[in-house]
Amino acid sequence: MAELVGNVLVGQSGGPTSVINASVAGIISEALNHECIEEIYGALNGVQGILQEDLIDLASESQQQIRALRHTPGAALGTCRYKLKKQQDFDRILEVFKAHNIRYFFYIGGNDSQDTADKISKHAQAQSYDLRVIGVPKTIDNDLSITDHTPGYASAIKYIAASVRELACDNESMGHGDLVSIVEVMGRSAGWLAAGAALAKRRDHPHDPPHLILLPEIPFNQEKVLEEVKRVLKRERFCQIVVAEGLVDADGNYVAADAQTDAFGHAQLGGAGDALAEIIGQNLPGVKIRVAKPGLLQRCAGHAVSKTDSDEAYRAGQAAVEAAIRGETDKMVTLLRGDGEQYASETGLAPLADVANSVKKLPREWINEDGTSMNFQFLRYAQPLIQGEVVVPHDNGVPVFARLDKSRVDKSLPAYEV
Amino acid sequence: MAELVGNVLVGQSGGPTSVINASVAGIISEALNHECIEEIYGALNGVQGILQEDLIDLASESQQQIRALRHTPGAALGTCRYKLKKQQDFDRILEVFKAHNIRYFFYIGGNDSQDTADKISKHAQAQSYDLRVIGVPKTIDNDLSITDHTPGYASAIKYIAASVRELACDNESMGHGDLVSIVEVMGRSAGWLAAGAALAKRRDHPHDPPHLILLPEIPFNQEKVLEEVKRVLKRERFCQIVVAEGLVDADGNYVAADAQTDAFGHAQLGGAGDALAEIIGQNLPGVKIRVAKPGLLQRCAGHAVSKTDSDEAYRAGQAAVEAAIRGETDKMVTLLRGDGEQYASETGLAPLADVANSVKKLPREWINEDGTSMNFQFLRYAQPLIQGEVVVPHDNGVPVFARLDKSRVDKSLPAYEV
Repeated sequence: MAELVGNVLVGQSGGPTSVINASVAGIISEALNHECIEEIYGALNGVQGILQEDLIDLASESQQQIRALRHTPGAALGTCRYKLKKQQDFDRILEVFKAHNIRYFFYIGGNDSQDTADKISKHAQAQSYDLRVIGVPKTIDNDLSITDHTPGYASAIKYIAASVRELACDNESMGHGDLVSIVEVMGRSAGWLAAGAALAKRRDHPHDPPHLILLPEIPFNQEKVLEEVKRVLKRERFCQIVVAEGLVDADGNYVAADAQTDAFGHAQLGGAGDALAEIIGQNLPGVKIRVAKPGLLQRCAGHAVSKTDSDEAYRAGQAAVEAAIRGETDKMVTLLRGDGEQYASETGLAPLADVANSVKKLPREWINEDGTSMNFQFLRYAQPLIQGEVVVPHDNGVPVFARLDKSRVDKSLPAYEV
Repeated sequence: MAELVGNVLVGQSGGPTSVINASVAGIISEALNHECIEEIYGALNGVQGILQEDLIDLASESQQQIRALRHTPGAALGTCRYKLKKQQDFDRILEVFKAHNIRYFFYIGGNDSQDTADKISKHAQAQSYDLRVIGVPKTIDNDLSITDHTPGYASAIKYIAASVRELACDNESMGHGDLVSIVEVMGRSAGWLAAGAALAKRRDHPHDPPHLILLPEIPFNQEKVLEEVKRVLKRERFCQIVVAEGLVDADGNYVAADAQTDAFGHAQLGGAGDALAEIIGQNLPGVKIRVAKPGLLQRCAGHAVSKTDSDEAYRAGQAAVEAAIRGETDKMVTLLRGDGEQYASETGLAPLADVANSVKKLPREWINEDGTSMNFQFLRYAQPLIQGEVVVPHDNGVPVFARLDKSRVDKSLPAYEV
């Protein structure tokens, strides 16, 4: 493989995670090792920034800031949900790449973003422009196929599990047989995040909170859930429920959506947690109900990041550069789990086209038969991923995160309307 | 003052905080220093446990567990909101105290709890039963008068400030002039907690998030807030709002309550955050709105405790015992702030009767004139309180908290109906 001399461009896309910037740090640190790489640029707000030629010089950032990226949530380069459609968009991207001699393009994102990367790569090939494109996986949803798990997922479930366990301390002390505590977690179509709450249980303590995990995979059975809540209230004096925002009933309708329109067609507020609270309140009078909805906090809790996750995200960034230097292109970095007793992961590569449009489901056989708790197969899968804590520096009592200088690369092309 | 020989009883009451157990640990550790104290008992679920003679032997707990109490959220002894009313209740409590030779009673709680402690003390005096009663303050609401601040408050605002700053990283990367992110925090009648979000701003960066803090003290002015949101969206590309659950309009009605009943009288779901989201959504079309409602997580985030707060809570427990040994009674421990440049606090004492039924308000002059941000006077007050982090031990990736054995003290009285 002939050495390809030129510049690197890194972009971030889709919803951020707590460790998405660790991958940027991994890419930068590895890129600095290779002499064929001349400049290291970042695209502001993903492909949208490329279209607008909004590039920044990452090599000129201080080493402190690049190190701080390893524990900084949110997408430090900015992100977008822009979908390239027009042929013109692809032409423009290639024009920008040519103008800045971009020969290595690394795109950190989920399904849609890998699809975008794939299309950019194919377009460059069709135009005989020598470009190596490697995707780096990220999503708290853990729904990317082929990779064992996705960077970002573990930190989200570590935060959820820690929050549920802390909340259990509070709930337990308040419960007198009449307290139902609901935590609504993200996950519109899959229960990966809600399932992670099971990690709050101590080993061999199946009765530990959360007492019920309501997943999008298991149709909501109101009667059964109410029975279970009553049983838990009697046994534990409080009942802690984790519910995925995408909970659906037997007809496939969102439980939250049901509550959003009343008999007169008025829009009502609230999500799955509030809807569940209403159902329990109406059917179990005298029960006190508390709902917590951490919302986006689930994907940006920098103070509760998994060390394993952060390290893997960084490593995935490094591996992307290594692969591109070796001559690979049109691939996404994957995480492969070792076979040994002790958890270990290494990186692999998979064709972008294979990743782009498939979704990894939470296996039914990892959910207990009752449909409201996770079994040892899930725990065996998820437990190793949340190991280790990242110490985040604090200033004045609050965590300190990276702030990039974002020194702009001079534009050389006419403006482009997005 | 004659030495009073007998047993200690500790109880916890009202809503827990992240550091309420640090005060229990302080009481136990100090009680062990005094030979006139024979047994150290805990009341399960506050006065409710006393009425039912549900006492546990705290001296028989392992030292590890007592140490772990210093970082364990929730009330480890259990808590209650039971209000003593009947004369019979007071008689019963005295009966239990006599049966177990309780001579030192420490009650950790807020306004109502200090009132309860005061009444128990007065009843004992009326019956010529030698008893020393010292209250230990706790509440995340920070509304206890006389004390400079209340243990529990600082850890709650440290968690809120950290969460807001983390969320800002996420929001900033997603915002394209169209993202409003709302965090609903606790505080039904006072804005102490919402105000704490201001600590997320870096010093001398008034434009840092949160961009708007909506307090119960400042009547909600819809037009003004919408104008401000538009202005911030233009300037910052995203707008982060912290709203207290107790936000009221100019007529004193809860903004959340407004949204709870539609024109047809149907109950609707959601709190102040959801109500605000609806208002913004209706008036600023095209804006994406995200609501997070951490709920009870605000008062139990053991992983984000302020070291200063935890130490002061522990110290308040110790000071309660020292005072009682000196012969003090009918007092609550207070925290006094030193006059020096460097923050320092020491403990004081105030009559229970003075504390019981007064409320400390957030001073209007600590709120900026615009009513949507806090000024340097608040920051000077709150900043020192959130300093320092507590390292919480983790097992298998999740924080580990104290679990008391709760070895029961034999009952010697007939049962009592609560």
